[in-house]
Amino acid sequence: MIDEGRGATEDTSQTQDSGEFARRAAELDAADPLASYLEEFVPVDEPGFVAYLDGNSLGRPTRRAAAELGELVRGAWGTDLIRSWTDGADPWMEWPERVGDEIAAACLGAAAGQTVVADSTTVLLYKLARAALTARPGRDEIVLDTDNFPTDRYVLEGIAGECGMSLRWIDADPREGVHAEQVAAAVGDRTALVVLSHVAYRSGWIADLPAIAAVSHGAGALFLADLCHSVGAVPVELDAWGVDLAVGCTYKFLGGGPGAPAFGYICRDLQDQVRQPIQGWMGRADPFTMGPGYQPAAGIRSLVSGTPPIVGMVPVRAGVGLVARAGIDAIRCKSIELTTLAIDIVDSWPDALGVRVSSPRDAARRGGHVTISRGDFRQVNAALWQRGVIPDFRAPDGIRLGLAPLSTSYADVVRALDVARTVMTRGAGAP
Amino acid sequence: MIDEGRGATEDTSQTQDSGEFARRAAELDAADPLASYLEEFVPVDEPGFVAYLDGNSLGRPTRRAAAELGELVRGAWGTDLIRSWTDGADPWMEWPERVGDEIAAACLGAAAGQTVVADSTTVLLYKLARAALTARPGRDEIVLDTDNFPTDRYVLEGIAGECGMSLRWIDADPREGVHAEQVAAAVGDRTALVVLSHVAYRSGWIADLPAIAAVSHGAGALFLADLCHSVGAVPVELDAWGVDLAVGCTYKFLGGGPGAPAFGYICRDLQDQVRQPIQGWMGRADPFTMGPGYQPAAGIRSLVSGTPPIVGMVPVRAGVGLVARAGIDAIRCKSIELTTLAIDIVDSWPDALGVRVSSPRDAARRGGHVTISRGDFRQVNAALWQRGVIPDFRAPDGIRLGLAPLSTSYADVVRALDVARTVMTRGAGAP
Repeated sequence: MIDEGRGATEDTSQTQDSGEFARRAAELDAADPLASYLEEFVPVDEPGFVAYLDGNSLGRPTRRAAAELGELVRGAWGTDLIRSWTDGADPWMEWPERVGDEIAAACLGAAAGQTVVADSTTVLLYKLARAALTARPGRDEIVLDTDNFPTDRYVLEGIAGECGMSLRWIDADPREGVHAEQVAAAVGDRTALVVLSHVAYRSGWIADLPAIAAVSHGAGALFLADLCHSVGAVPVELDAWGVDLAVGCTYKFLGGGPGAPAFGYICRDLQDQVRQPIQGWMGRADPFTMGPGYQPAAGIRSLVSGTPPIVGMVPVRAGVGLVARAGIDAIRCKSIELTTLAIDIVDSWPDALGVRVSSPRDAARRGGHVTISRGDFRQVNAALWQRGVIPDFRAPDGIRLGLAPLSTSYADVVRALDVARTVMTRGAGAP
Repeated sequence: MIDEGRGATEDTSQTQDSGEFARRAAELDAADPLASYLEEFVPVDEPGFVAYLDGNSLGRPTRRAAAELGELVRGAWGTDLIRSWTDGADPWMEWPERVGDEIAAACLGAAAGQTVVADSTTVLLYKLARAALTARPGRDEIVLDTDNFPTDRYVLEGIAGECGMSLRWIDADPREGVHAEQVAAAVGDRTALVVLSHVAYRSGWIADLPAIAAVSHGAGALFLADLCHSVGAVPVELDAWGVDLAVGCTYKFLGGGPGAPAFGYICRDLQDQVRQPIQGWMGRADPFTMGPGYQPAAGIRSLVSGTPPIVGMVPVRAGVGLVARAGIDAIRCKSIELTTLAIDIVDSWPDALGVRVSSPRDAARRGGHVTISRGDFRQVNAALWQRGVIPDFRAPDGIRLGLAPLSTSYADVVRALDVARTVMTRGAGAP
């Protein structure tokens, strides 16, 4: 049931509203200081394509990523071959720290020497959480929230089981997220570690990381932030906020490509106190001596385990380079305008459509995506995909509009939501 | 000291010998049923380049990898975007098992449903070894060897520490490797797991995996094989040999590219008995329900933790496709001819050069690379790199000649070893 029994007849207000929003979008696009970045992305090559609204899940590829993958295959891999690991100005051996530092400088507010790129988000989260526990012996509780991204919950459940820890769950409001007061009520002298997301994957709620870090530290616990849904869209100040450890993904707003390697951060003061469990040759001091006995490399390098995923890092560097050039503050400004426009359009829809905004209305607490909800949105999302509008669906009833500032125009938002309104008005099954 | 004080004067035998070997190489190349595969690789674009002899460390890129990376960026990533995870004939969500099965069919001797591609070799080894221990509760010993690849040793040291296990070391002869008799003497009723390499990373020794699996099972232990230095060069029959778990890398003879994701195998009968520790959303049953509580996916999928590294898997598929087409038995035949030629050339060198063959002379026990040794080979290797001959150096005194059958001609071997002989005769520092 698409329209909840009301408003299934022709909706004459639509043309008028869209015209108004189209004019507003045109003005915003004309004045957009980041408009030129739209040309930096590989164009979508599909007849009838309307707009991509899922940059919060899989960012679009940059033209530079395409070019640099080709250059890698012909040059560093195909010609320099094994020498590329150790020789030249940009040896692959150093990429974990180099690309980590590039991300840190572009959008983490972190000084160099605290971030590496390696593994998947899940594996890095496992390593970081396990590492954190080694710095809090005698404490047996991990604090997390019921609406954290699934892999975070699953990883921590596994760690709790194997390390004899208890999980203490904060009951998060799925339309918002976790408040610092809830963390304050949850932590205590048994708490070893607090693990929460910066931006909630469903609602887009921005948690107050400095306050949560302070509250965690007040109880003697460490704080690990999941930045997957904020990095590259929302400014982060890891050093200033006192975040102890962080993990994030590079395939959303950083454009690293499907399954691109993740980044991990351990603040400098903590690096000597923690030990991650997957002792690999690439995190060892002097790896090419290949000698007996594991001795962790100095600093953040010890977070690395296996051979750095160079091919996977090429698009990451290209995407991070764009973010650095555009500037995270300018990106955030456009992000707020984009999500505000989306909410205004949804608010203009007749009540009969039955669509709710399930994201914070306060722009200061809202990240780079807006979730709207309706009971049949699984089917509506499928219908939108058929019509060249590509958001994503998140159970039970949410469509996420992920508005990546560098690759999304204001006109995209208007066109896409016009199609969405039409689909809902006519029924998802209509042609 | 390059020549150990003898034979530093002009070596008149060289021209004559090389002529003989050049003729033999020309005959072998002319009759090589795999010769056409040389054209499948991206050409080295460097003036003065002579030959690449490090396919055992980083395989050369295939032309198909280059083309398919470009197609991915324009098509599945750039145009189909997020839909590629779930839609179409080849959804990314299924790539871990699909590419795993492709590797299994091409060169592991493993039926479908037992292999996935994910993570780095190091991380997968960690997960597999931890998983194996869950199936042998009450046993507290892991058997490994002193000359196993460093990351294997470091990972197992870490696991022993965190799981309260003891390590029992087999003292491997670095010019050969581990014999089944040594394993028989090491295992007992405390042994939970035996972890050994199929082909030794230094000597190239082929361990007798069926015998080692049988000996391990005789003691009630599980056997985990590291296939990094054999897969794609030496036939493997995991199912027939009774190997319980295996891990291997795809960036050597499979051409997956620097840091490409690894593969892991768990034999079907064991899959329900083991549990790997990194519980991620991509290894959960019904991942997109994103519900509470981790429930492992059925079968080998539960070995997956994070988002599959699609960009990194594209060159893997291309490389594995070549291996499948060429056939692992034909590859092995050429591999034996290549390493035999290399040994014959080194054997023809004057004793005064002081070069030793540190690999098995029995071709049946020798993998895809030959290690030769001399005290100053670190410097000689550097001099070879300067002259367009690219093997690799392994401490303390070995140069590995890695002869990837699909991308190496017999003439390559002759030309490269001519340069090596010249360098050693004149001194590594000579122009």
